[in-house]
Amino acid sequence: MVSDQSVASRLDWIAVDWGTSALRAWAIGADGAVLDEARSGDGMGSLDREGYEPALLRLIGAWLPAKPARPIQVIVCGMAGARQGWREAPYRSVPCAPVGGDQLEPVATTETRISVSIVPGLSQAGPPDVMRGEETQLAGLAAKLGPATATVCMPGTHSKWVSLDRGKVTGFTTFMTGEAFALFAERSVLRHSVDAADTDGDAFGSAVAETVDRPERLTSALFGIRAGSLLEGASAATARSRLSGLLIGAELAAVRPQWDGRNVHIVGASALAASYAAALEQLGGKPVIEDAEELTLAGLAAARSSIA
Amino acid sequence: MVSDQSVASRLDWIAVDWGTSALRAWAIGADGAVLDEARSGDGMGSLDREGYEPALLRLIGAWLPAKPARPIQVIVCGMAGARQGWREAPYRSVPCAPVGGDQLEPVATTETRISVSIVPGLSQAGPPDVMRGEETQLAGLAAKLGPATATVCMPGTHSKWVSLDRGKVTGFTTFMTGEAFALFAERSVLRHSVDAADTDGDAFGSAVAETVDRPERLTSALFGIRAGSLLEGASAATARSRLSGLLIGAELAAVRPQWDGRNVHIVGASALAASYAAALEQLGGKPVIEDAEELTLAGLAAARSSIA
Repeated sequence: MVSDQSVASRLDWIAVDWGTSALRAWAIGADGAVLDEARSGDGMGSLDREGYEPALLRLIGAWLPAKPARPIQVIVCGMAGARQGWREAPYRSVPCAPVGGDQLEPVATTETRISVSIVPGLSQAGPPDVMRGEETQLAGLAAKLGPATATVCMPGTHSKWVSLDRGKVTGFTTFMTGEAFALFAERSVLRHSVDAADTDGDAFGSAVAETVDRPERLTSALFGIRAGSLLEGASAATARSRLSGLLIGAELAAVRPQWDGRNVHIVGASALAASYAAALEQLGGKPVIEDAEELTLAGLAAARSSIA
Repeated sequence: MVSDQSVASRLDWIAVDWGTSALRAWAIGADGAVLDEARSGDGMGSLDREGYEPALLRLIGAWLPAKPARPIQVIVCGMAGARQGWREAPYRSVPCAPVGGDQLEPVATTETRISVSIVPGLSQAGPPDVMRGEETQLAGLAAKLGPATATVCMPGTHSKWVSLDRGKVTGFTTFMTGEAFALFAERSVLRHSVDAADTDGDAFGSAVAETVDRPERLTSALFGIRAGSLLEGASAATARSRLSGLLIGAELAAVRPQWDGRNVHIVGASALAASYAAALEQLGGKPVIEDAEELTLAGLAAARSSIA
């Protein structure tokens, strides 16, 4: 990375991923290279509407030229566009391309050196479903794959399974897998049993197999983690991996036709992406782990190019 | 109910149900009648080991005669017998009768006017499972039904499905349905959508049908509650009933052979028991709602009779 002054002299635009718990920004040069990056904990969850511009400027202020020839474009994806966010960017309905530049939502700012636009999320009418942020990664993936059909698995707090067809999102399904893991691991009776940093690959694999075949047993198998630790002294690492495997297996049971014998592009944080890949490989799927940050940046660039 | 002095003169023994969040006690006369009852919030969750005897005496102290001919028996079921409780009462392994008096766990007390015994819970080796408290209600039910075979559904924080065969518990399965409901309703992204006191019977029924047939869709259907409230403005009462129905339906999917066309004895708090009964009736099961408090008292009496 380079000095702030050097960033300011070479800055072309700024990419921003504004999540529920974190804010990330990248300074991008005219050649598309990342000049610098920054992050803070100013996610949507900790901000009111008036807090967004100051939070952004704390992060990117040092990058801005004193007097730019024209305002620096700031392209934002994620929860900043939610109803409780900076400015609501209404959902676009699938089937549609993951991002459509003419529908970026402009946000007025006090700072005149920037011009902020928010990428809208996507919605699906039947069954009802929504995403915010993932559409940008999907745009990056669509640009990379070209006019192919693809299945995309996006693990996270609310994991998504997405069908891409010739550059359009044709449908998607959200699972509460990640949030359920956090709730059971930290807030339920299981918290006594799963307090570990280590993992147990065998326990993970057999738990995946259990719920992918018998998903109806999920909530009894979850209690079995507690009983196993009381009666058999199962280790916390085993219990934690079992919790993860049971939840991921139940998710995979619901989307079997989408991965059975097929390529699945996995877009998510690296440890979680590796868990999903291990589960899919064990079941005969063909996981392809993608670089989530690279796709986010490519997607924001695609969104920007349509309004540049 | 009668005055404390009159209770003391007629008191034969004291029944206690000591749960995670609550403590209940009943003063029982020589004819088996309830002379008085009392409750407090001194559950296992808020007590350390030294806190149990004082918490009990705060509740029952006024009932005790000044100088009883012999110590008053106090028979306790529930979490007081857990490892983190007053004194651990080791699990008894199924198959076995729900309570076996010779295995009540005596607890030494500073107060000499009482003689405390704890009813042990039950464990199952394969698959590993445990219960504490429900075994006492099962003893009450077994006494009522006689030497029959029966399926028992015990909804609650950790709901249980139990097979009774000629007075013995032959197996059981625990589901985290109630705890999952509380976690999703109060701690997840769904909390914004389900904040209601009202219920919607139609939404409950269709949600039950959904997961009883397709249990693998549980965690995506849960997120659908949030999406439905964002996109379709579904009411909080509808969303809350849907959350309950999806979780209960997924539980019922796992135990279908136990209720399909059969009598199911339901033992639980009245509103929750009614929800399970409605779900089972809709599916062609034959629910029989039992009086949970009556069964607890009958079970504690059965436990006591074997050491009296």
